[in-house]
Amino acid sequence: MLGIQGLSFQDINTLLDLADDYVDQNRQVDKKSSSLRGRTQINLFFEASTRTQSSFELAGKRLGADVMNMSVSTSAIKKGESLIDTAMTLNAMRPDLLVVRHPDSGAVALLSQKVGCGVVNAGDGTHEHPTQALLDALTIRRRLGRIEGLRIAVCGDILHSRVARSNIHLLTALGASVRVIGPPTLMPGGIEALGATAFTSMREGLEGCDVVMMLRIQMERMTGSFIPSTREYFHLYGLDYEKLAYAKPEALVMHPGPMNRGVEIDSLVADDVDRSLIREQVEMGVAVRMAVLDALSRHLPNQ
Amino acid sequence: MLGIQGLSFQDINTLLDLADDYVDQNRQVDKKSSSLRGRTQINLFFEASTRTQSSFELAGKRLGADVMNMSVSTSAIKKGESLIDTAMTLNAMRPDLLVVRHPDSGAVALLSQKVGCGVVNAGDGTHEHPTQALLDALTIRRRLGRIEGLRIAVCGDILHSRVARSNIHLLTALGASVRVIGPPTLMPGGIEALGATAFTSMREGLEGCDVVMMLRIQMERMTGSFIPSTREYFHLYGLDYEKLAYAKPEALVMHPGPMNRGVEIDSLVADDVDRSLIREQVEMGVAVRMAVLDALSRHLPNQ
Amino acid sequence: MLGIQGLSFQDINTLLDLADDYVDQNRQVDKKSSSLRGRTQINLFFEASTRTQSSFELAGKRLGADVMNMSVSTSAIKKGESLIDTAMTLNAMRPDLLVVRHPDSGAVALLSQKVGCGVVNAGDGTHEHPTQALLDALTIRRRLGRIEGLRIAVCGDILHSRVARSNIHLLTALGASVRVIGPPTLMPGGIEALGATAFTSMREGLEGCDVVMMLRIQMERMTGSFIPSTREYFHLYGLDYEKLAYAKPEALVMHPGPMNRGVEIDSLVADDVDRSLIREQVEMGVAVRMAVLDALSRHLPNQ
Repeated sequence: MLGIQGLSFQDINTLLDLADDYVDQNRQVDKKSSSLRGRTQINLFFEASTRTQSSFELAGKRLGADVMNMSVSTSAIKKGESLIDTAMTLNAMRPDLLVVRHPDSGAVALLSQKVGCGVVNAGDGTHEHPTQALLDALTIRRRLGRIEGLRIAVCGDILHSRVARSNIHLLTALGASVRVIGPPTLMPGGIEALGATAFTSMREGLEGCDVVMMLRIQMERMTGSFIPSTREYFHLYGLDYEKLAYAKPEALVMHPGPMNRGVEIDSLVADDVDRSLIREQVEMGVAVRMAVLDALSRHLPNQ
Repeated sequence: MLGIQGLSFQDINTLLDLADDYVDQNRQVDKKSSSLRGRTQINLFFEASTRTQSSFELAGKRLGADVMNMSVSTSAIKKGESLIDTAMTLNAMRPDLLVVRHPDSGAVALLSQKVGCGVVNAGDGTHEHPTQALLDALTIRRRLGRIEGLRIAVCGDILHSRVARSNIHLLTALGASVRVIGPPTLMPGGIEALGATAFTSMREGLEGCDVVMMLRIQMERMTGSFIPSTREYFHLYGLDYEKLAYAKPEALVMHPGPMNRGVEIDSLVADDVDRSLIREQVEMGVAVRMAVLDALSRHLPNQ
Repeated sequence: MLGIQGLSFQDINTLLDLADDYVDQNRQVDKKSSSLRGRTQINLFFEASTRTQSSFELAGKRLGADVMNMSVSTSAIKKGESLIDTAMTLNAMRPDLLVVRHPDSGAVALLSQKVGCGVVNAGDGTHEHPTQALLDALTIRRRLGRIEGLRIAVCGDILHSRVARSNIHLLTALGASVRVIGPPTLMPGGIEALGATAFTSMREGLEGCDVVMMLRIQMERMTGSFIPSTREYFHLYGLDYEKLAYAKPEALVMHPGPMNRGVEIDSLVADDVDRSLIREQVEMGVAVRMAVLDALSRHLPNQ
């Protein structure tokens, strides 16, 4: 499970249906499944992420797996051990499932070629973050009943966002029309080849949108000609009710978290009980990861 | 379980009795209970504490819970995510029990209002550290058979100590007479309103005491007019046999650990097999936390 | 299990046989044993080591233990708590097995005298790293069928290497002839008293060797008269095919990892599928640790 790119319409829907079941199940009596009973899952995080790591840990444990966390600072890696040597070390531990986050795009795919177990990409550089896109889609599907035919805007630092990339792949595969909106310096060349339409104005980009997905902005990444203050950024691209009015009257608001309130999103919009889906997104996290781990485990050799 | 303040005489005794059973049980054959079987406990530490976190982890595991540790640096929190957003994220993981340590007084109570599960305060700022007070009381009760009627001194940095606050609430609720002793600059205004009597001299304060509780001193916290060297501090407030002689002849010595030997307590006193209860205090830690988690779990909805 | 020194020929062979079984078992169906069911294992690491800690964690979990990781920075220790106080705290948690790594030689032995449970040395200062030596021996035994009568060279920073010390004890106990090779400033006085022969030239030392074990070099440890660049070091002591030719024609190559490729070992030699045993060494790690934990658990009191 290295990315959304390459998954079929059918693959994605199977995962979303499975996750849907886990959401409902999670809300009911029996929280513990056992499809990963006796399996070893290693969470290998080269980049700290308490949120995502915990979500995968809980998902694995709820499915009965033995879960082990390994946090590796990339500085240690640079001290001498290559990614391939790390893969060899891990492989010798004979895990069944490996959940990997890495700051370099493509590193998870490279590592997956060197190990003999199921690998889940928990975010690699600016490339993909497939479970985030799946939980975003599940959130929309549960609220609006469908993805097909929707117009969805992804707004902010498109250049550095693996969340944007995975969402473009997934939403277009399910038949949505995807727009990306951001400052020119944060808009990667060739983004339209992925199937999205690019805008640099919130007013133009949000027109007619059913869903507005805001991205987390990291000011320290901004270099070159466009180095705004957080105040300027909010003025131009931060989602408040004024800009939200450019979208459809009932348009829904999303954010993958953690939010910079007052930078990319106004607190009032973020907490709007009718229009913000941010709470629901977080709710989908564990269920989506259970679905992905469960689906992968079906391809593992018998124990 | 946010603090000792507000617990009744009956509440406290119920917890101490339950912990007492676990201490005895722990010393015997069957170490594993199952009152938390199938439950998810998240230890959320915004402040590092290997000791307390491990103690809660072990307590949860011995009761059969799935325990997950989340260490969150508050610097990361300050980068943009509010405590409320963190609470929302956690809540979406649907834990049954949340054990929280936070550097700000009141943060644990605030968080508990936003989640739908049992919450244990594992220390919040200078406010409360209820399980420490419970284990201190259990230690005294096991040695002296009672708390009522005892004169107990709490000595050191009263201003910054959540241990002092929780102990004042607990010991006075059980009928002890509590004295606090420390330098004037480390003595908070209004401490006597909590039911303790304040002293700035060890000689006067220790007079007639049955138990002397020393607090861990952190020199870096001392500012303003009173910035002593550790040597001066030890001379004025460090517990050695000379100062201990001001208390009752058989007075017992306690310390929540980790100790700064030679700063707030002399090694000879700390290791005195007859009069130091420090070893016993540590022994009570896991049992008290098992009691608290177990008691809380009885209020959880059925699985 | 504090070191190899003091273990008998019989002890070592029993552990190697047990580990051998676990290697084969690990490759087959039933990965989960239960000889540590209901036992609590604490991994207490005063020095960070993701690799070794994970290996012990996985070994304990595969044997059914509850495993708890405690990472303690020695700076925190120096802040006031003595090793003995740490031991007392741990002991109060009543673990069955304690796996300890510490930067000071002898610290693990000292700690073991203060606790009432089984203790495994996972590396203490420059003293011993017994499970590394056991996995090295197992690797050789599985490839060559024996240890007795082999000539084995250990090369590099002998002075600071606990791996070297444990290997000298183990390999000589099993009847191998051991040579140590390294720069004069990294060759400890008295090393020959342990049963090894010392060389400062790779050409002379490698002559007639069946196995060449390279050690990880840490340039920051080099002080005094011999402070080479990594390039100089590689020229004099790095293992490439040219130096390897001094050994027997079929000589095998080993390294405990993580490797500094291009410093102490050439990548071509490290990855040589016929002559490098480095991949196999890593493979033995979990099995050897399972064997050690299992053997220790047989001496624990019944639950």
